[in-house]
Amino acid sequence: MELLFKGGDASLLPLSTSMRHEDTSSSFRARQDRLRALMETHRLPLLLVTHLVNVRYLTGFTGSAGILLLGPREGWLWVDPRYTLQAGEQAVGVEVIEEKKGILPGAAKWLGKSGAREVAFEASNLTCEQFDRLREKVGGEIQFKPAGDLIEELRVVKDRGEIEAMRRAGKLTAVVFAEVLPHVRPGVEENELAAEIEFKMRTRGAEGAAFGTIVASGARGAFPHARPSSKALQQGELVIFDLGAIVDGYAADMTRTVYLGQPNRRVQSLYAAVVKAQEGAVREVQDTVTAGEIDSAARRILARYRLSRFFTHSTGHGVGLEVHERPRLGKGETTCLRSGSVVTIEPGVYMKGLGGIRIEDTVLVCPQGPEVLTPAPKDYWVIG
Amino acid sequence: MELLFKGGDASLLPLSTSMRHEDTSSSFRARQDRLRALMETHRLPLLLVTHLVNVRYLTGFTGSAGILLLGPREGWLWVDPRYTLQAGEQAVGVEVIEEKKGILPGAAKWLGKSGAREVAFEASNLTCEQFDRLREKVGGEIQFKPAGDLIEELRVVKDRGEIEAMRRAGKLTAVVFAEVLPHVRPGVEENELAAEIEFKMRTRGAEGAAFGTIVASGARGAFPHARPSSKALQQGELVIFDLGAIVDGYAADMTRTVYLGQPNRRVQSLYAAVVKAQEGAVREVQDTVTAGEIDSAARRILARYRLSRFFTHSTGHGVGLEVHERPRLGKGETTCLRSGSVVTIEPGVYMKGLGGIRIEDTVLVCPQGPEVLTPAPKDYWVIG
Repeated sequence: MELLFKGGDASLLPLSTSMRHEDTSSSFRARQDRLRALMETHRLPLLLVTHLVNVRYLTGFTGSAGILLLGPREGWLWVDPRYTLQAGEQAVGVEVIEEKKGILPGAAKWLGKSGAREVAFEASNLTCEQFDRLREKVGGEIQFKPAGDLIEELRVVKDRGEIEAMRRAGKLTAVVFAEVLPHVRPGVEENELAAEIEFKMRTRGAEGAAFGTIVASGARGAFPHARPSSKALQQGELVIFDLGAIVDGYAADMTRTVYLGQPNRRVQSLYAAVVKAQEGAVREVQDTVTAGEIDSAARRILARYRLSRFFTHSTGHGVGLEVHERPRLGKGETTCLRSGSVVTIEPGVYMKGLGGIRIEDTVLVCPQGPEVLTPAPKDYWVIG
Repeated sequence: MELLFKGGDASLLPLSTSMRHEDTSSSFRARQDRLRALMETHRLPLLLVTHLVNVRYLTGFTGSAGILLLGPREGWLWVDPRYTLQAGEQAVGVEVIEEKKGILPGAAKWLGKSGAREVAFEASNLTCEQFDRLREKVGGEIQFKPAGDLIEELRVVKDRGEIEAMRRAGKLTAVVFAEVLPHVRPGVEENELAAEIEFKMRTRGAEGAAFGTIVASGARGAFPHARPSSKALQQGELVIFDLGAIVDGYAADMTRTVYLGQPNRRVQSLYAAVVKAQEGAVREVQDTVTAGEIDSAARRILARYRLSRFFTHSTGHGVGLEVHERPRLGKGETTCLRSGSVVTIEPGVYMKGLGGIRIEDTVLVCPQGPEVLTPAPKDYWVIG
């Protein structure tokens, strides 16, 4: 089998462990400080953090259960006995409280006795049932106030440690794809390739896949959300690969499309149009541009090829500790990109019968312009 | 390398595809009927189902977003344009409504216009923010009422199609473990074995792993929640494997512990005690017994060996579309097991320095007694 790489400029160097950069305790303290400043602005004396990703972001604690209460100067982290030791080692800037009978009731009781008058909470995370239990256990006169998405807003701009982790996640994702590419040939099942990709992520040092890897071939590629199936790849088909590794908690997100065989001019021109739209939108990535403008850039280029109506989703989204974060890069979004943000740029076209072509990179917004974190070649096909 | 299998009676036959049994549309209708009967008892004219697992359970729709409203005779399923086609094919007994501008607002608007006076909702799933948006969009005079966990209660007793899926998930899990066992030897990293296990699950036809596979060796095994690390296995160590495949949406959950080398008498007797406790508890599994009694059975046997204080978690939990379902098999739980329930039985002992020994099976409650769904041998060690 011969691989033709057309275009692409990426060096797929093996990952060096010397690139590792652990978040230091000072970065967690800095995040808490930034949050406290926001809390002061919004006049929130206490903030109850139940969204586990946010607990991790603020303290470094990676356990599967924990509730954080942040005050103007102190912080408390409730964990169950499974995590007492781990929280003691990991969690920065907080007092760890072991709670044997449920961490939510534990935090609630503590709040009830604290004399606090008002506490902000994450309304986009706490369920109605948890909220009712919380209020009941707290008793007394405490006012609960939705905090809005203060922490999600902080997370939009990544710090040095986060950017290092995301560079490694992006590079690992690109390396894994290059390693799997030789196995892409007619007769192989979508499922097998997805399993192979996730296996290689793990053995290369990722914590796992950031989302269920998509391998969608032929007509199935026309569904942007297709899950890999037992369908075998066939000569003359487009195959979409959408994959992303997690490294130190941070996700990458990358899509490449491969054609099995020698594509005709129609496929070649569609392919070239998507690459142009993607690269054009990437070039627009700057900290003075709105999310909506990036989206427009991709659409404008596709429109030149009369392909707008086949691009049925938005151009991208933020990435970080979660695969889908702020901002959304969609029509009319007025949020300005900011230096230190990481976003995906992923235009695609989907046609009934023919399938789909999507190209996606994870891109860091730098003062001097975009830095592509998923350095895999674009624009290639496999001749079996 | 030589493998000594001591005890165990399982036949690890390859999975036959003829065993496949798809849930038929009649089983979804039957589930809706059972729920409607409960709704009538609780005087709930309308139930808004937002927990996606419950939407799948009731309709068969497997997309990643969908909201179901169930009435006394009809049902409606809101999906976004990605899922219109798929919902049309999959969803049983409901009218599919495509909603381009958010499925929650869509359902809310519909409710507002419906003339309904009261609607029950899943308070353990809906976040405070979603609830507020829902109420605001509905407008008018509709009363919202927490539905309790009606659907979760229904899910405790599995029907024929569910049991078939769980048998296949259990068998696949046992087969994968047997296949990976020859790779278990000193020098191999925990991470590698976890990746290998999840890879084999996928290539054998599972949708994926039901949870992050645990491989915890030596002292790390003393933490019941340990995640696999880059630590290499060493001669003279206990290694805990906790794994489970998903088949047709249904999870299995199984733990085995392996010793690398020829164990001394201390390890042998600890091992034998855990196996006795596990098998003793499995034997108690019947539809007349309470969840607490099963837990006591395991504890009583460990107490004979003076090991109670090293058994630091509960004996098990329900399994199904989710890995952790009702009932909890813990101290004092008064819920009676019911025929058609599937639960785990997983006693273990954890000792600082030495590590952990845990044995777990997924077990179906049958009228005539327990049926073990994860038929892997117990009680073995590897001599390298």
